[in-house]
Amino acid sequence: MNGPHNGFTLWFTGLSGAGKSTLAQAIRDDLVARGRRVEILDGDEVRTNLSKGLGFSKEDRDTNIRRIGYVARLLSRNGVVAVAAAISPYREVRDEVRRAHEATFVETFVDCSLDELVRRDRKGLYAKALRGEIDRFTGVSDPYEAPERPDITVHTDRQTIEDSLKTILAELERQHHVSPRPVHSVA
Amino acid sequence: MNGPHNGFTLWFTGLSGAGKSTLAQAIRDDLVARGRRVEILDGDEVRTNLSKGLGFSKEDRDTNIRRIGYVARLLSRNGVVAVAAAISPYREVRDEVRRAHEATFVETFVDCSLDELVRRDRKGLYAKALRGEIDRFTGVSDPYEAPERPDITVHTDRQTIEDSLKTILAELERQHHVSPRPVHSVA
Repeated sequence: MNGPHNGFTLWFTGLSGAGKSTLAQAIRDDLVARGRRVEILDGDEVRTNLSKGLGFSKEDRDTNIRRIGYVARLLSRNGVVAVAAAISPYREVRDEVRRAHEATFVETFVDCSLDELVRRDRKGLYAKALRGEIDRFTGVSDPYEAPERPDITVHTDRQTIEDSLKTILAELERQHHVSPRPVHSVA
Repeated sequence: MNGPHNGFTLWFTGLSGAGKSTLAQAIRDDLVARGRRVEILDGDEVRTNLSKGLGFSKEDRDTNIRRIGYVARLLSRNGVVAVAAAISPYREVRDEVRRAHEATFVETFVDCSLDELVRRDRKGLYAKALRGEIDRFTGVSDPYEAPERPDITVHTDRQTIEDSLKTILAELERQHHVSPRPVHSVA
């Protein structure tokens, strides 16, 4: 079933600021260097293109995730590595997207403690959410359901991005979704 | 730029019943036999997956077409042949989708006279629309803007589906989007 020429979906889930987009870009760069076709489906960008007008109620979030899942499904069954980087807070709709996939769906939990996210708070969003200035902010004023049995877990509060990247790539190689990176001799 | 391994988008536009879906399936079968990855983006199916809740106002139709265009763009820039089969009645949004593409966008006008569509009327929709029972039915009670300079035109009121298919494939070969079909010797 798996093989280095088959597409698959690498689905990141985790809180805002945990490192999903950064990891998605690092993975893309690495896999493109191995000759793979890779497409990042970033939560914010997909919202603009596919879900304008949707809000942050459970229903609207689920609809947005189903749409990202549909596009990931089409890409992955056509040989592309689809890398989804959206909070995707609800377990049930993540599982629904997994079931709809023909290609392999690799759920990857980008785990970072709320304490650490509040400490970093690069965009100042957690401070705002804690002051009650953002409605429905996942992890503060809106639920986040961590995966029960993710295929891969990285802990970005105690691993560097480089180490998290290594963890993910090692697991993708172990599961034969990607070939080991070729070793080039220096000219 | 073009080449037999690059993705492209084959975008059908035309009235309901003109033969877009039938042609899309015939093209897919042919290109898959040539070893290509092909994904059909059918208007009705994409509406269910990406545009639930949208209606048939100009604005909603345009939004639906932009979403199909976004998915076609992602597929085609990753080596897939994206075949869009949606009425896509408005010229401006078709042109907008074309401009957003990195891969080649081949606009294909599936031209069939309204007289012939009313005569065939396989789903009974034209009769209903002419009786005023369907609001905003393209070609009867809602506008259809034919392409001014389509890359390919087929006339399904005077060509068979097989002939239309041949017309399209010949043009795709001429433009080097697909390789000529290999000739197999009979065992």
